[in-house]
Amino acid sequence: MPINELELLALLGERLLDIGDDTAVVASPTGPLLLAADALVEGVHADLRLTGIDDLGWKALAVNVSDVAAMGGRPLHALVTVGLPEGRGGDLAGLYDGLLAAAEAYGCTVVGGDLTLCPVLALTVAVTGTIDDGGPGPVWRSGACPGDTLFVTGSLGAAAAGLRRIGSEGTGAAGPDVDAHRRPQALVDHGRAARHGGARAMIDVSDGLALDLGRLATASGVGVIVEHVPVAEGATFEEALGGGDDYQLLMAAPDPERLLTRFRGDGLALPVAVGRCTGDQTERRLGGGALPAAGWEHRW
Amino acid sequence: MPINELELLALLGERLLDIGDDTAVVASPTGPLLLAADALVEGVHADLRLTGIDDLGWKALAVNVSDVAAMGGRPLHALVTVGLPEGRGGDLAGLYDGLLAAAEAYGCTVVGGDLTLCPVLALTVAVTGTIDDGGPGPVWRSGACPGDTLFVTGSLGAAAAGLRRIGSEGTGAAGPDVDAHRRPQALVDHGRAARHGGARAMIDVSDGLALDLGRLATASGVGVIVEHVPVAEGATFEEALGGGDDYQLLMAAPDPERLLTRFRGDGLALPVAVGRCTGDQTERRLGGGALPAAGWEHRW
Repeated sequence: MPINELELLALLGERLLDIGDDTAVVASPTGPLLLAADALVEGVHADLRLTGIDDLGWKALAVNVSDVAAMGGRPLHALVTVGLPEGRGGDLAGLYDGLLAAAEAYGCTVVGGDLTLCPVLALTVAVTGTIDDGGPGPVWRSGACPGDTLFVTGSLGAAAAGLRRIGSEGTGAAGPDVDAHRRPQALVDHGRAARHGGARAMIDVSDGLALDLGRLATASGVGVIVEHVPVAEGATFEEALGGGDDYQLLMAAPDPERLLTRFRGDGLALPVAVGRCTGDQTERRLGGGALPAAGWEHRW
Repeated sequence: MPINELELLALLGERLLDIGDDTAVVASPTGPLLLAADALVEGVHADLRLTGIDDLGWKALAVNVSDVAAMGGRPLHALVTVGLPEGRGGDLAGLYDGLLAAAEAYGCTVVGGDLTLCPVLALTVAVTGTIDDGGPGPVWRSGACPGDTLFVTGSLGAAAAGLRRIGSEGTGAAGPDVDAHRRPQALVDHGRAARHGGARAMIDVSDGLALDLGRLATASGVGVIVEHVPVAEGATFEEALGGGDDYQLLMAAPDPERLLTRFRGDGLALPVAVGRCTGDQTERRLGGGALPAAGWEHRW
């Protein structure tokens, strides 16, 4: 049954908080304004034979919140733009269910967006955020210095392992790795703890440790040596190093004890040391060898 | 020549103002925060055989700025998400040229976004804006009252006429109507003048006068009578009534003289009265007949 945009908005009325004007009006934050946007495209970022439409909605919001978390910020609002193929109006309810579940989990209010025809399901979310807790300012990816210790907030490769298991065992597969793939978590509390704990560079591991660590190192103008890769249960070493979509936070901290104390005080699982930054900005080392430039990267 | 995201970002380095972290950090406005997002999809909103890729970039930004203008606000920042098919990396430079030309024209800084593979070119822009000039607050589409006079900022149908002429005369067609289609203008100054001039409902005419006036009337709970449709030179009456993409502002004002005085004082072309609001909320009249529910509306 084809439905038009107004009917869709009515259908979604219970799920959306503001469906009036094309522009939402909200209070400005008292801290700086953080802005991030990311798109998920069916067939590129998600195979809907393996992933529920609600999970796609969750992920589209969570990956943006993760970008805010990686600055040490907290999310405020989201704008959701859905490109929807002809005849796929029935997907919207599930999509918004997942999306709004994530919005509620992260305290991020969906205030508007757009709905448009598109040959493929494409979901773009833009989020605002801020840092307004009186602590240090945002943590850039470019702030690492030689001698800093590199930490990640948890073991890596779970999402890649989960996707692999769904592929081989079918959509009935279950477990923490499958959950990590389907409903990735944005680590807002961990990002804040890192900022308060003195981390001076941070990035979320969305495209794999090797690639995202390379980005942090290049932006900071430092070398990096990885001495330990925490592999998630069920994941391979390669998945831990190159698998995307984990959304653990990777950070560089000059004072490990201060960082760990802050995480402990906040009641969070302690981050795991994975290596250190060096003064040779060309250095990309994994143990005795080279850190592969592996990861999830498009080519056009 | 396939290129990857990092190479693309380097290529775009001169055009983009901030290509570092996934999250941009900017100062919060002193007024309320306005948020809007819109997507343009190749083949749905634009036929690239008729429209230049740079014009598509311009339009993607301008239509969002128009949403902010329709609240009486001014734009601040933009997040640009590009979904790009395999092998189309060469389109990016032109796309960003148009986009950044619009950003400069409207004082709207592109601070970030995302670039992703997509089977079809899809361009999503999210903008922030504010109202910080000490005048009245934002103008919603829902504020019209019976007795208000309806104005539009200019004649209608130009963009539809321009598209029709490009279709029949080819891409060499030229004139104000063709310009209106290719490079629609967001009327920020007019929106501000309307707000200061006492307009209490406003919407931009993106989907045709008939449809957008219906939206304003429904949101406001008023009836509307259209007594005059200002038809752009070269456009038909039907194009003026139903053609989308004009981005003129449509407003309801209780005190026409106050509104016109403000526009005059700001050195702007005077808005044109098109009709009035009535107390019968089911009324949708055009002269002696019914206002058609025409316009640009998707069905799924």
